[in-house]
Amino acid sequence: MKIAVFGTGNVGQSIASKLASLGYDVMIGTRDVKEAKSRTAPDMYGNPGFGTWLESNTKLKLGTFAEAGSFGELFINATSGGSSVKVFKSVKSDDMKNKILIDIANPLDFSKGMPPSLIPSLSNTHSLGEEIQKEFPATKVVKTLNTMWCGLMVNPNLIGGGDHINYISGNDPDARKEVRKVLKQFGWKDESLLDLGDITGARATESILPIWLRVWSVTQNGAFNFKLVK
Amino acid sequence: MKIAVFGTGNVGQSIASKLASLGYDVMIGTRDVKEAKSRTAPDMYGNPGFGTWLESNTKLKLGTFAEAGSFGELFINATSGGSSVKVFKSVKSDDMKNKILIDIANPLDFSKGMPPSLIPSLSNTHSLGEEIQKEFPATKVVKTLNTMWCGLMVNPNLIGGGDHINYISGNDPDARKEVRKVLKQFGWKDESLLDLGDITGARATESILPIWLRVWSVTQNGAFNFKLVK
Repeated sequence: MKIAVFGTGNVGQSIASKLASLGYDVMIGTRDVKEAKSRTAPDMYGNPGFGTWLESNTKLKLGTFAEAGSFGELFINATSGGSSVKVFKSVKSDDMKNKILIDIANPLDFSKGMPPSLIPSLSNTHSLGEEIQKEFPATKVVKTLNTMWCGLMVNPNLIGGGDHINYISGNDPDARKEVRKVLKQFGWKDESLLDLGDITGARATESILPIWLRVWSVTQNGAFNFKLVK
Repeated sequence: MKIAVFGTGNVGQSIASKLASLGYDVMIGTRDVKEAKSRTAPDMYGNPGFGTWLESNTKLKLGTFAEAGSFGELFINATSGGSSVKVFKSVKSDDMKNKILIDIANPLDFSKGMPPSLIPSLSNTHSLGEEIQKEFPATKVVKTLNTMWCGLMVNPNLIGGGDHINYISGNDPDARKEVRKVLKQFGWKDESLLDLGDITGARATESILPIWLRVWSVTQNGAFNFKLVK
């Protein structure tokens, strides 16, 4: 299956390389291919720049957002939440139809300093997942994986034997089941995946970001998640 | 020690009866004592009305908010979040000074239907805990216990051997330590209590309500909490 991963950040990189290692044919979508390849300086955490990283991930294709949209049979949104709708508007509208779009992004607002808050118009009674679904009604948006560090998204067994929670929300029950299959390939166990029903569940899971960021600031380690105790 | 519990709902009742069972001298504060006593009809979950409940909890005192404020050496806010500031404005300002106020309330907004959202002016870049602290700068506000069903607040061992998380936020480190002592009397283990630092941590913990409510709606059982896996 051909998968388009939108976004060149650490999250997009983690997802794209994992999918390629699972045998999927993957294209990363970006605004400006030449600019993305020119990013060679490491980031503040010492991760290589995108261009450098891409050179060592030879299986991965790189294209514009529109090219990735035409390429992918399944979409993954790993762009920054505030620009996600704009990104998918640059995909041909026919290419948006009937696709499953796995939305793993968060509507973080860095304009008020650190730590980020949520973008007011995309929080509380709204959410990024819902907004994308509203803008692209013929696309099947499924929100998942947005509540943890990207290293855990694609390798849940890194901590606690993989025994921690990941949520799934989306209006189309069959799409939620398809996404569950991909998640299981990432290492997620059925009993760790909680189906929250329709896409309004994105309000709930995007609201986890403030406590995630606070716990991270206290523990200084992003390799954590939550487990449901009952 | 004399403790004033503000609020007559299920949360206030759970906390007040637990404190009394621990030997504390407890007064519940309410807007209108006569009206509170007249509530005898059970609620939609079959819990007895406050008046009926009070009759079987003979150790507990009942007074106005002002009377509770004069009585208590430690305050607990179990009022509905949207009215909490108003409640404490009806306490004599001298009685607010240098008291520890344990804020276990949430700024839920029921005006847009069920499930509730958060009150916009008290969410994201603001919080109820911060708002109370701002309005009463001489009071030591400590946010805790607001992220779970009241049955677990006072009896964490009810699930998972008590091995799940409770957060503590407040500007005064000594007040946070005092509150930790009370929580340990409720059954909380030190390793389950995560100190989030200053009262802005309330933004993070109040933001848990949307996912709490969503999980509750899916599982149909409020006796759950989250555990930090790392």
